[in-house]
This record gives sequence, C-alpha cells and structure tokens, in this order.
Amino acid sequence: MPVRIVLNEDEIPRQWYNLAADLPTPLQPPLGPDGNPISPDMLSPVFPMNLIEQEVSQERWIDIPEEVLEILYRWRPSPLHRAVYLEKALGTPAKIYYKNESLSPAGSHKPNTAVPQAWYNKQFGIKKLTTETGAGQWGSALAFSCALLGLECKIFMVRISFDQKPFRKVMRQTWGGKCIASPSSETQAGRAILEKMPDTPGSLGIAISEAVEAAVTDPTGQTRYSLGSVLNHVMLHQTIIGLEAKKQLAKIGENKVDVVIGCAGGGSNFAGLAFPFVADKIHGANIDIIPVEPTSCPTMTRAPFAYDHGDTAKMTPLLPMHSLGHDFIPPPIHAGGLRYHGMAPLVSQAIVEGLLSPQAIPQVECYESAILFARTEGIIIAPETSHAVASVIREANKAKEEGKEKVILFNLSGHGLMDLAGYEKFFAGQLQDYHLPEEEMAKSLAAIAGLPKPSTQKTGKW
Amino acid sequence: MPVRIVLNEDEIPRQWYNLAADLPTPLQPPLGPDGNPISPDMLSPVFPMNLIEQEVSQERWIDIPEEVLEILYRWRPSPLHRAVYLEKALGTPAKIYYKNESLSPAGSHKPNTAVPQAWYNKQFGIKKLTTETGAGQWGSALAFSCALLGLECKIFMVRISFDQKPFRKVMRQTWGGKCIASPSSETQAGRAILEKMPDTPGSLGIAISEAVEAAVTDPTGQTRYSLGSVLNHVMLHQTIIGLEAKKQLAKIGENKVDVVIGCAGGGSNFAGLAFPFVADKIHGANIDIIPVEPTSCPTMTRAPFAYDHGDTAKMTPLLPMHSLGHDFIPPPIHAGGLRYHGMAPLVSQAIVEGLLSPQAIPQVECYESAILFARTEGIIIAPETSHAVASVIREANKAKEEGKEKVILFNLSGHGLMDLAGYEKFFAGQLQDYHLPEEEMAKSLAAIAGLPKPSTQKTGKW
Repeated sequence: MPVRIVLNEDEIPRQWYNLAADLPTPLQPPLGPDGNPISPDMLSPVFPMNLIEQEVSQERWIDIPEEVLEILYRWRPSPLHRAVYLEKALGTPAKIYYKNESLSPAGSHKPNTAVPQAWYNKQFGIKKLTTETGAGQWGSALAFSCALLGLECKIFMVRISFDQKPFRKVMRQTWGGKCIASPSSETQAGRAILEKMPDTPGSLGIAISEAVEAAVTDPTGQTRYSLGSVLNHVMLHQTIIGLEAKKQLAKIGENKVDVVIGCAGGGSNFAGLAFPFVADKIHGANIDIIPVEPTSCPTMTRAPFAYDHGDTAKMTPLLPMHSLGHDFIPPPIHAGGLRYHGMAPLVSQAIVEGLLSPQAIPQVECYESAILFARTEGIIIAPETSHAVASVIREANKAKEEGKEKVILFNLSGHGLMDLAGYEKFFAGQLQDYHLPEEEMAKSLAAIAGLPKPSTQKTGKW
Repeated sequence: MPVRIVLNEDEIPRQWYNLAADLPTPLQPPLGPDGNPISPDMLSPVFPMNLIEQEVSQERWIDIPEEVLEILYRWRPSPLHRAVYLEKALGTPAKIYYKNESLSPAGSHKPNTAVPQAWYNKQFGIKKLTTETGAGQWGSALAFSCALLGLECKIFMVRISFDQKPFRKVMRQTWGGKCIASPSSETQAGRAILEKMPDTPGSLGIAISEAVEAAVTDPTGQTRYSLGSVLNHVMLHQTIIGLEAKKQLAKIGENKVDVVIGCAGGGSNFAGLAFPFVADKIHGANIDIIPVEPTSCPTMTRAPFAYDHGDTAKMTPLLPMHSLGHDFIPPPIHAGGLRYHGMAPLVSQAIVEGLLSPQAIPQVECYESAILFARTEGIIIAPETSHAVASVIREANKAKEEGKEKVILFNLSGHGLMDLAGYEKFFAGQLQDYHLPEEEMAKSLAAIAGLPKPSTQKTGKW
C-alpha cells in the first residue's frame, strides 16, 4: 500500500480548470464606486491585461504556458500522501489522503499562482510587482517567483508582523525582494494613516492600499500590483493542486472521494484542491466539500453574501462575496492567513449554490490537531493548515462512529517552520479561543448596509 | 530535458552500502583508554547491540528493514534536481545535479539515520534515547523519529544555541522531545562544569558528555545514546542518498559523473552521497570526490590523521580520524554543523588513501554562493550546505575555463529556514572570514601528542 504517490514531470496537468465555466449561477461582476460593473480596461492600471483576461474568462480549461510549467517543475507535481499513522492513531476506518503543498521552496501553495502572475506580468513588459503580506506566506512566494523571473518585487508588510517575524523579511531579502513596514511614509495612504495614528500596528487593509497606490502611481507605467488570493485568476492557478490529486488517486485505483477539505482565508488553497471536485459535484457526484475557517473570523459560516470592498480603505472594486464588512478587524489569532474579512467570489457563489459545507473551528482545537498530526505524520504544519486538519479529524471520527470507510482528501497548504511562535504559546497555555459576539458582527456589518446587494438566487440543488 | 527526477516507492534502494567492505586499507579499530581495541561489548551500555553489529560490520550490503522503509517513504526517494538556472547564471558548460535532502519533515538528511537508529533501539527493547545537538538539525531529526516510533527523546542542546534558536526547541517540543540547555544540573558532568563556569555558553563536547552520561546511568537500563554523525553505522544509513542518485542519473541516461561534492562536518551527508561513488573510484572510475569544510575548522585540509576522542571530556573511545584535537573550539561561524574538531573515520581513511580531494572555503564566499543559489534555483539552503554550493560554483567555473561539459553532482543537505540569522548578518555586512592561525592549531594539536598513532599507510593509487 503506497503512502506517497508521486507523478513525473510529464504527468503534470497542462491546463488550469476554471470553475466560472461550470457554476450553475454565473458569477456576478465586480462593481465600481458608481455601482456599475467594472470594465476590464478600468483594471488595467492595477493588473496586466493578460491576467485581466483570465480574471473574466468563461473558458473551462486554460493552457498553462510551457515556461510556467518549467518553473513549477522545481517542486511539482507535489506528492499525495496517505496519512496511515494519523488513521491508526484515530482508529478510524476512513482513508485520509493529503496533497503536500509545503514542499515548495517558499513553503506553501502560494507559488502556484505567484509564478504565473510574475510570468504574465513579465510577458506584458512589466518590470516590478508590488504586493502586501500579513502572515508572510504570500510575500515570500512572490519574492521567490520574481527572483526566478528577474522582476523587482516590493512588499508592504503589516507592521506588527514586520516586527514580530523578522525572519520572513530575511527570506524575502535572500530572494532579492524589498520589504517595508506598512503603514510607510512612501505612499500617500501610508502618510495619512501615520499622521493620524503614528503608533498603529497596521492592517492588511492599509497594506493593500499602499501596494495598489505604489503600483498605479509609478511614472514609468511598468509596475503592477499582485494579489495572492480572492481573485478568480488566483483560484484558477491553484487548481493544479486538485487536478494533480485526481491523477494520483486514479493511479492507485481510488476512484471515489467522499470528503474534500481545505482551510479558507481568502480561499485560494481550498479552491485549488476543491474546485475540480466541485465540478464533479455539479455533474452529480456525491461529495462533501468543506472549507474551514476560524471561529474568530466567521466569514462563510456567519456573514452575509454581499457586495463589499476588498480593503479597508475602499480602494478596490466591490466584489460579490461573503463578508464581515471591510472595517472588520479579526482577533489576533495565529493563523494570520485566515484573518480576512471577505472570501473569494467563486468560493462565495459556490456556498450560495449549496455546493460547499463551510465549518468554523476554534484555534485551540486546531493546535491540538496540529500536534497530533506532527507526532503521527511527522510534518509541522502552518497554523492555517491546522484548521483543515482539525476538520479532517472531526470527519474521521464521524466515519468511525458511523462505521464507514470514507475517503477523505485535504490540502496540506504549508509548513509551520516560520510560524512556531504560535506553537510556543500553545505549549505555554497562552492561547485562547475567540467567538465573535453578535453585537461586534452587527457593528462591522453596518459598513456594508448601504452598498448594492448581489442576487442570492440559486439554480441547483445540492 | 527533465529538471527534477523522481522515483516511486518501489524504486527505493532496499540495502545500504558499507564502504568498510571495499576500503583498500581496512579501517583501524577504536581504542579504549588503555590503548587497546574496544570490543563490541564495551559499547553496549551506550548503543544497542544490533547497531554495534552494524558499526563493526564488514558486509558490503546491509538490508534496510521493511518497517524502516515504510517510514522513509514519507519523504523518500528524494528528488534529484538539475540546476538549470544556476548553470545559466554561471554560463558554464557543466551540468549540475543535486539531491534535495531538504524535503524531509525535519528539513535535512539527518532523519535518514535518525529513523533507523530509533527503530533498531526500539527492536532492542529501548524506551528512550538521549543525544546532543549544536546547530539543531540533528536534535530535530531524532525528536521527529522518536515521535513516529513512540520512543522518549531527550536532547542536550549547547546553551548558546538553546538561547539563540528558541524555535528549534519548539520544533522538538512539537514532536514530543524534551530539550534542555547544556551544561545542565541533571548530570554529574554538567554540574561539574557549572560549578567551575556558571556562565559558560556550553560546547558540543560538554553536551556529548551529558547525553552519554544520561544514557548509561539510567537505572532501568532502557536508555541508550544516539549520535548523528561520525560513526560507521551513521555513514551506512546515509548511503541511501547516493544509491538513489545513481538510479536517478541512470534513468535519464547520465551514466558518467565527473565531480561529487558534499559539505562535511562529521561527514554524514557527504558520505551519504559520495560513498557509492567512492566504490566506483576504487574500481577504476575517474571521479573527483570533494568533501568541503570551512577554513575556520580545517579538519581535513590541515589537521593530521590521528587517534583522538570524539568529545572534549574524553568520555568516548579514541577514533582514527583527521582531528584538530579534542580541545579545539572553532570560531563562531554560522554553519554550526561544520564546527566539529574531528571527522568520520571512514571519510578520514578514504582521505588517507587519496580517494578524496578535500577543500576548505571561507564563510563569506559560502553565503554569496547561497544567495546566488536562492535567486536562481529558488531554495534557501542551510549554512552548512552553502559550503557544497560554493565548491560547485568553483568547479563549474573551472569547467567553463577548460571548456569541458563536466557532470557535477552535489548534496543539498538541508534548508536554511531555521538558520536565517546568518543570512541576516551577511546582509548587514557583519560576517567575517576566519583563517585558523598556525600557532592556534599547534596549541590544540598538543592535546593529541601523547595518544597512539594510527597507520597512514595506503595501498591504492588515486
């Protein structure tokens, strides 16, 4: 019985899968400040046109450029593991498989989109990319990708993370990326905040505003902005994970998956694994597909499907998504990548359609699950990934109660070696759970009360 | 042209290769305090008899137990990469390949021996292992292996590393290992040192003494000591690296390797890759085989082949090896894994025979090489590994000057994500080179002046 299924280079998927082509209810368009749909042209100061075309594409399959594949080969196809030791520890009849995305040089799934984004920008004549980063996985991945493709990279890092995670900065510096604490004095947005709040720890919302401003105000016109989650083309690039998983499962004759699980902050690693299975579900397959979020930031499980901005400063278009309101500031849990007020429109629309079954799990249960995983499967996972593992353990225990030999597949989105401070606090008994109070949620939701409403009609029955 | 060659589980080597069987001059035995050869029985309080048998074995091939293979499958066979981006950056006609040992859950080649050591101990009825660690790769690997096999693990970590690398401790704790700063008050050796020098930063020599004492004084008799380098059985377990590399090179029709390179502190990752090629050289192949050390700790390039203790406190037997003297304290370079006064007897004997061509490289050149590697190949390597990469770049440049399409193979022994402090200092311009002065070397060599001398006779011509 193989415990690790590998693919050769020539078995890598050569196309990405675009869920937009199969969604029963078509995706609703992003809206501008006037409430009218945004045209592709309006996005062109921010993104290169070739990526904007992918963002709005309705094609089901999109070719992966040969030169992108050549870089992905550095670590892809990623292995599919069978979690035999975890199964044994749980005494479950379930079979648990995971895609190991922690083996990329940046340590997570993020380079799956950072590489093509950098490549398409380069094709378009762009010389420099700006971005923001909170937890740090995305900033590292973009610096890595820009190094391999010879682009400049500038990263606005939320000040509190910048100060607390000095080694993330060193990682990016090693790849030649420039990392600056946000808010900074380099942008108008940053200066305005610093004037009002000189001691602010910063926020992802502010950092996004600065990164976008730095891109669109570059007088050479050769700088663009890059985002590591939420947008359609990001979800698209990540589907290589799920497409590989299908080939690997087929290779060992595992033809029916019962449960698919991924953690979801902006949605990209979840979508990457799950969307090819969502397609199966749309076409009749019986699969539970579970995106998992923290109880402290319950975007999918408690927030409405609404039109909202992607950032606090309201610089981005309105996106149709589950959102806690662009003002929402999540409690300081250690899974920084899951501390986002919104959710990818494609994931959100699939929730509206009833295709997904979101779960929220408190962080202490997640760390307990991560430690069981480390002591059985051997890998120290990222705090974000621990949410997926906690859900897997719940599902495996349910299978045990029901006496069913279910097949569970999840995404091991990244390792936790750069985020051991959270483990340290857990061992010291200093971690607590946060449950978002109703009144606090009502307060942050007030910010979206006056905005346009997307349709919540659904066509399918799942 | 593939850039990453993978093997399936069923292609993994099923035997380790023992160089002792092929060395032209037989390995000279370890000696006790009386100058007489140590018998296997005398080692039995320290190691289990099944590993002692491996330590003294003259068998060429030793079967890898099926249960050990099942654990190694978690990350093995490791991929073989072609360094196309580095080749391009150097403009060299050489083809550069590397084994990527950084993908194990502990981040280095160390689990290749930690897993079988833990397994053989468990087979022998042992419940607990003790060890020491300096840089931290070994302690992490043993904690990982003990977690998977259900053994207790206690690690004496040199105090200065314990204080400077708190996250290494968290890694081990996550795997359930107990980590304690050395010198500690838990052993007689530790207490004696603390009494004399309460503020000592500790040393690997002291930590070895404590770990050995903790093992041999356990009244239950169910504790043994485990070492991550130097010894014959450790080199044996690591040969899976080179044996896999041969299969992978054959798979792509690369049948002749010209240069094999690995960094060497105690010798284990170098030996792991190189010994199967040393066998080829003994049988007539024309290969340059290069172990690389720091100029600050020039064991192979400047120190004599002598009988010496493995630790400062002289608790271990005398081993025939290149040694700077057991009193030697290397300068504080950042490649902690290469700061050892001795060298594996098998590697040392191969040097005496003329089978190897050791090099010493200063640390600033190594960091420069590591940064070029990160920006071309994408992987942030361990400071130890940077010595191998610096040598590869020298050899690739030589091939360019000579206009020769050489095939160079090296061992990427580990990633540097837990050791970014060194990179940070490099970027800040705070790193310096150390060249060991003659008089300092003479001083530390005085410690071995009165000890027995091994024969330096050689039988072969290479």
